[in-house]
Amino acid sequence: MNQSIKPGDNPDLTDERLSGTFDTNAMAAVIYGSDKLAQRRREISEAVSRIPELKDSKPYPFMTREEKILEGSRKSAVLNRLLPGLIDLESFEETVFIHQEVIGIEGYPLALHESLFIPPIATQGTDEQQEKWLMRAQRREIIGCYAQTELGHGSNLRALETTATFDISTREFILNSPTITSLKWWPGALGKSANWSIVIANLIIKEHNYGPHPFMVQLRDEKSHEPLPGITVGDIGPKMAFNGADNGFLGFKNYRIPRENMLMRHSKVTSDGSYIKPPHAKIGYSSMVKVRSRMAAEQGLFLAHALTIAVRYSAVRRQGFLKDKSREVKVLDYQTQLHRLFPSIARAYAFIFCGFETIRLYDQLLIDVQNGNTSGMADLHALTSGLKSVVTYQTGEGIEQARMACGGHGYSMASYISEIYGVAIGGCTYEGENMVMLLQLARYLVKSIEMIQNGKSRELGPMVAYLAEKESEIDLNLGPNEYLKVFEYAARNQTWRATEKFQKLRNSGMSNEKAWNQASVELTRASRLHTRLYIMSTFINHVGSIVDQKVKGVLIDLLNVHVTYEVMDIGIYVQGLLSSNQMDLIRNQLYVSLETIRPNAVSLVDSFQISDMQLRSQVICAFLAAWDDFQTKHCIMVQRTRFKTYILQQISFNKIKFEESYELRYLAILVAVSLRVPYVNDLCMDPRKFKTRQMLYHFVLGRRDGNVYENLFKWAKSSPLNQTDVLPSVTQYLKPMMDKSKL
Amino acid sequence: MNQSIKPGDNPDLTDERLSGTFDTNAMAAVIYGSDKLAQRRREISEAVSRIPELKDSKPYPFMTREEKILEGSRKSAVLNRLLPGLIDLESFEETVFIHQEVIGIEGYPLALHESLFIPPIATQGTDEQQEKWLMRAQRREIIGCYAQTELGHGSNLRALETTATFDISTREFILNSPTITSLKWWPGALGKSANWSIVIANLIIKEHNYGPHPFMVQLRDEKSHEPLPGITVGDIGPKMAFNGADNGFLGFKNYRIPRENMLMRHSKVTSDGSYIKPPHAKIGYSSMVKVRSRMAAEQGLFLAHALTIAVRYSAVRRQGFLKDKSREVKVLDYQTQLHRLFPSIARAYAFIFCGFETIRLYDQLLIDVQNGNTSGMADLHALTSGLKSVVTYQTGEGIEQARMACGGHGYSMASYISEIYGVAIGGCTYEGENMVMLLQLARYLVKSIEMIQNGKSRELGPMVAYLAEKESEIDLNLGPNEYLKVFEYAARNQTWRATEKFQKLRNSGMSNEKAWNQASVELTRASRLHTRLYIMSTFINHVGSIVDQKVKGVLIDLLNVHVTYEVMDIGIYVQGLLSSNQMDLIRNQLYVSLETIRPNAVSLVDSFQISDMQLRSQVICAFLAAWDDFQTKHCIMVQRTRFKTYILQQISFNKIKFEESYELRYLAILVAVSLRVPYVNDLCMDPRKFKTRQMLYHFVLGRRDGNVYENLFKWAKSSPLNQTDVLPSVTQYLKPMMDKSKL
Repeated sequence: MNQSIKPGDNPDLTDERLSGTFDTNAMAAVIYGSDKLAQRRREISEAVSRIPELKDSKPYPFMTREEKILEGSRKSAVLNRLLPGLIDLESFEETVFIHQEVIGIEGYPLALHESLFIPPIATQGTDEQQEKWLMRAQRREIIGCYAQTELGHGSNLRALETTATFDISTREFILNSPTITSLKWWPGALGKSANWSIVIANLIIKEHNYGPHPFMVQLRDEKSHEPLPGITVGDIGPKMAFNGADNGFLGFKNYRIPRENMLMRHSKVTSDGSYIKPPHAKIGYSSMVKVRSRMAAEQGLFLAHALTIAVRYSAVRRQGFLKDKSREVKVLDYQTQLHRLFPSIARAYAFIFCGFETIRLYDQLLIDVQNGNTSGMADLHALTSGLKSVVTYQTGEGIEQARMACGGHGYSMASYISEIYGVAIGGCTYEGENMVMLLQLARYLVKSIEMIQNGKSRELGPMVAYLAEKESEIDLNLGPNEYLKVFEYAARNQTWRATEKFQKLRNSGMSNEKAWNQASVELTRASRLHTRLYIMSTFINHVGSIVDQKVKGVLIDLLNVHVTYEVMDIGIYVQGLLSSNQMDLIRNQLYVSLETIRPNAVSLVDSFQISDMQLRSQVICAFLAAWDDFQTKHCIMVQRTRFKTYILQQISFNKIKFEESYELRYLAILVAVSLRVPYVNDLCMDPRKFKTRQMLYHFVLGRRDGNVYENLFKWAKSSPLNQTDVLPSVTQYLKPMMDKSKL
Repeated sequence: MNQSIKPGDNPDLTDERLSGTFDTNAMAAVIYGSDKLAQRRREISEAVSRIPELKDSKPYPFMTREEKILEGSRKSAVLNRLLPGLIDLESFEETVFIHQEVIGIEGYPLALHESLFIPPIATQGTDEQQEKWLMRAQRREIIGCYAQTELGHGSNLRALETTATFDISTREFILNSPTITSLKWWPGALGKSANWSIVIANLIIKEHNYGPHPFMVQLRDEKSHEPLPGITVGDIGPKMAFNGADNGFLGFKNYRIPRENMLMRHSKVTSDGSYIKPPHAKIGYSSMVKVRSRMAAEQGLFLAHALTIAVRYSAVRRQGFLKDKSREVKVLDYQTQLHRLFPSIARAYAFIFCGFETIRLYDQLLIDVQNGNTSGMADLHALTSGLKSVVTYQTGEGIEQARMACGGHGYSMASYISEIYGVAIGGCTYEGENMVMLLQLARYLVKSIEMIQNGKSRELGPMVAYLAEKESEIDLNLGPNEYLKVFEYAARNQTWRATEKFQKLRNSGMSNEKAWNQASVELTRASRLHTRLYIMSTFINHVGSIVDQKVKGVLIDLLNVHVTYEVMDIGIYVQGLLSSNQMDLIRNQLYVSLETIRPNAVSLVDSFQISDMQLRSQVICAFLAAWDDFQTKHCIMVQRTRFKTYILQQISFNKIKFEESYELRYLAILVAVSLRVPYVNDLCMDPRKFKTRQMLYHFVLGRRDGNVYENLFKWAKSSPLNQTDVLPSVTQYLKPMMDKSKL
């Protein structure tokens, strides 16, 4: 039933897989929306695994930023060539998936070219502008980015400072960065890779500021890639994660672009300096909603990554004794471990279900808007704002718990979980800071309450209708829908409470803004509860619609974990509703649910189908990597004999066996590089000849096969510090210090 | 009153400092226990800031691991020389402080030499052994580490696998690593730096296993620093943080050491192979307790680091509008921001107070033990186990909130908060995994309940006496002590509930271990509540003892933030006690307290006295750094003219102004290094000549002076990726891709 079992696996993991009660492929079909989509992911993973050029040159944690960016660029170029044979180019899902599979999660120089550079040209450029730039961008003749955020302003877009002043005499815009805080800051790929950018700048005509508008701006010479005069551009330096991306800064000094470079499908500036307003004010809105609508599923998958690692490792790590004193117990058998991991598995499923539902809602909205119906926009904007906040935060929490559940080895980069955390937690800040987002949803909730107060309950949308309802009797024995009622109670109560606090303050004579600020913590709480209610309700509905009975059965078990855990977690909000006996009942039910799900734990994470490559526990084509390094760093030729001497020295030094021929070759090149021993003829052949000769350096706790310890050792041995026995830190500092002490 | 005000500071920050109501030096005296200790910290910071050799060569986030280890070794060697002139060598506090000030928090190769290598020799070595090794270690003729944890075992020490088998014929121990999981794994400094180690191995005599014992083992040749035959040793690879430390692995293959290398103050093996037991079984216990007893203050200071950055930055970052539309508001004026940061400030103070109190208890315990009274050991062991868990977890939470409160720039390594998080959160795992620790405290709590059940309430220690008490009326208007009663209620209730669950399961016929496991989540909850009660009670007592009325006044305000926030946070546990009206009252009181503390926010973090150097926002003596790099990498000499040409090219290339002479010099050397242009005579002078010529590259959001934006820009410009305009990623991959598309 579990499709991940293979010979040679760690028997502890095989046992877990044999205890699963459902077909993991069928579950994957439920997770990814259809059997076809799930199968395509498997096929793409499989195809990618057969192409050595697409493998990591070496483990990402061993790379510098420069190397990560080089690696991402290399793979982007390779993918650009191979993509047509690997995926359906029309499928956005497949495009996203293959990039993540191949390049991983740490970012790469072309990540935003497709998602943030091309779309504005396509949606905001005129037909002529599209003709001029769209094909060039799509063919990747140019590489672009999207420069909006500035050093001084992220959330408050109205206060952006970059200016584009129209010069009527030359019919040009003059771009300027008038202050240090007006430097564009953060845009991905801006630092070193992009040669064009969409730049958001205040449109100024005859000293009147028409606010932020998009401009198409060339940054670098297309031949030399040098920044053009008037442009200051560079990388913003290392970050918590995403270090494979060159987020950049950008400043302008009287930089002139033709009038035709303002994207003018909606707003226009005529050659005589007249400004023509866009037909709809909120036209730019939908791209934000789109990005946020994708975040829930994306974050759910980050959580799934971390849980795959933690659950598999917990099934092979044995520590301490429970019943049988002859063998240590799997750490997955400790109740504290179940409690750490399983509610997060439920959330990962919930987020993914919810994410795909939101994407569906977004697609529906697009159709509605095209038909002139924009009424759903505010609803979806509010929903995605809240969802983004709750999901990113809970995902971060869950990933860190997963990491800690792996004990010390979770802290090693060999687990890779801290990198997943760094990437995922960025979501709390980018695309709208979470507090700001929660307060946007709160505005919508407060408006809904005001409608009820004004007797317009019947006009409420379906997502907020519960705010007007009365509380009803709860019979927890009737299943998940009763828990939903508990959440409705909590969200309703808190929304009313927060709204009334705001209204009371305002009525006391306080300004609207100040009253809002003083109620804001309560308002964010209302937003969170409302969003968690939505997540739970989507989970329940989704499970209800499943046909495969075995899959449905285990998802009902998982849903029981979810509803009991979530209600316990918001216990403080339901004091008036549930008796202490009822709370005890829920608590006990949670423990029972954790035990029930236990035999399916590994199968539930296997169903995410996250390949060893995506977990960065993949085969590393180290030879190819060393080859690349070698080519990059040394273009010199020397005699074969001198090189051989060095290698032989190194072999005796590191006690390497001759049989391990790939390890030897790798080592040889590393030696060559580190000692600057030049190139040798027999390493000089076409690198493609080595493509099938891969050295296996697996490295992660989450490996499908569960063979953790021996590979942890291999990984460590291959890390940069172990390429020499005595470090410069010793020869330069520690050794002289010790020697001097002996005198 | 606030002692941090200087000319040239960001006026927003100066305004905040002027609004403070107390003397920050007086507060520092309260934080660090005495005016003298606080003053010594200032003096040491000041002295260190005047020594260019002790500055960071470049920002840590720009370094590779090799460079971090090199930097730590360099500074260790310098400190070894300068320490006598800088600190009182007898003072453990000053020693710890100066190392953190100078080397920072990312670890260094000598960190464990003092804390984990020397103490076991001193406490477990015989007089002869001390004579042989102690002085050598103290003088740093040798560098040591402490190797206990193995690849397969951390928490369950009884299952360690390394063996030391006594060979009666040669009177030697033969060390072996019989399995891959028996490799020593994680010990700091083991990988590359240490040449000796204390190794914990199972003592085996005549096939009888006497369990883990400590052995003194030489790992590397003292001349060549090469590993000795029979030893496999190396670095375990990159980690989430602490990448300045070379945590290592270690394996033995029939490695022989003399009988005299077993540390034999307590247990002994005679030359005929007789084993002599130690007089007390728990003798090794106290070092764990000691380390854990220090963790609360240490973690409190990590939290203080992050909060210093976040609070200062929040006072200079302006975003959005509240009342006045003419100027954006400080983000510190948003209620959500207050709510994110201030309860953490209160916790940081509480943890530090609690930490120093625990250290005092530990010192008292040592005296008691020396007088033959070991009765307090179990109490302190239980207390420190719980404290370590709660404090590390809440510290991590608080640091991440501080980072997110800085928005996008918090995510940049220029904030350094993610590094602080990585270091601090390690505390959840090292020195006893948190769940394991909580369950150790739980054992103590369950025993206490059993004493009550057996009518022995009067024998309970003072920390658990409340478990036998009845609940009393709560009058929240009477201040913090009433909130303490609320916590007592919660902790008592939960401890009884968890204990009864355990007992009921056991009485139903379940084995002790299984019953314990099934009650373990409830038991960990009891442990957390008990510990939080202790933290609050220590905070209240500490504030009560303060003499300076202004300091006391603001700490009472902070205490009000603490007690209201903490009680809200455990609301679910006090449902039976507090009415919903009382909860509303507490909630409102919290919001009032947040506003009350607002004018003192910056002064409260300034009082931690964390220097810009400790925040790694220090002056960087880049020239010296470049000099070091240069010396390290290139020992070649070339003509002056050729070098000058390169520099001039680079100047025009990067548009560097000649006036910026330090920047120019730095650049010159970078160019020299990157282009392998050799050494020039005029750079060849004594580096000390440059010591006073420092280039200022500040880099952090938390700078004392609040001048964030311009320094953020400088920091970014100096980062490695900006040393060249066109990266190899472009020339090798992206440019060819674009060019090909144009065809």
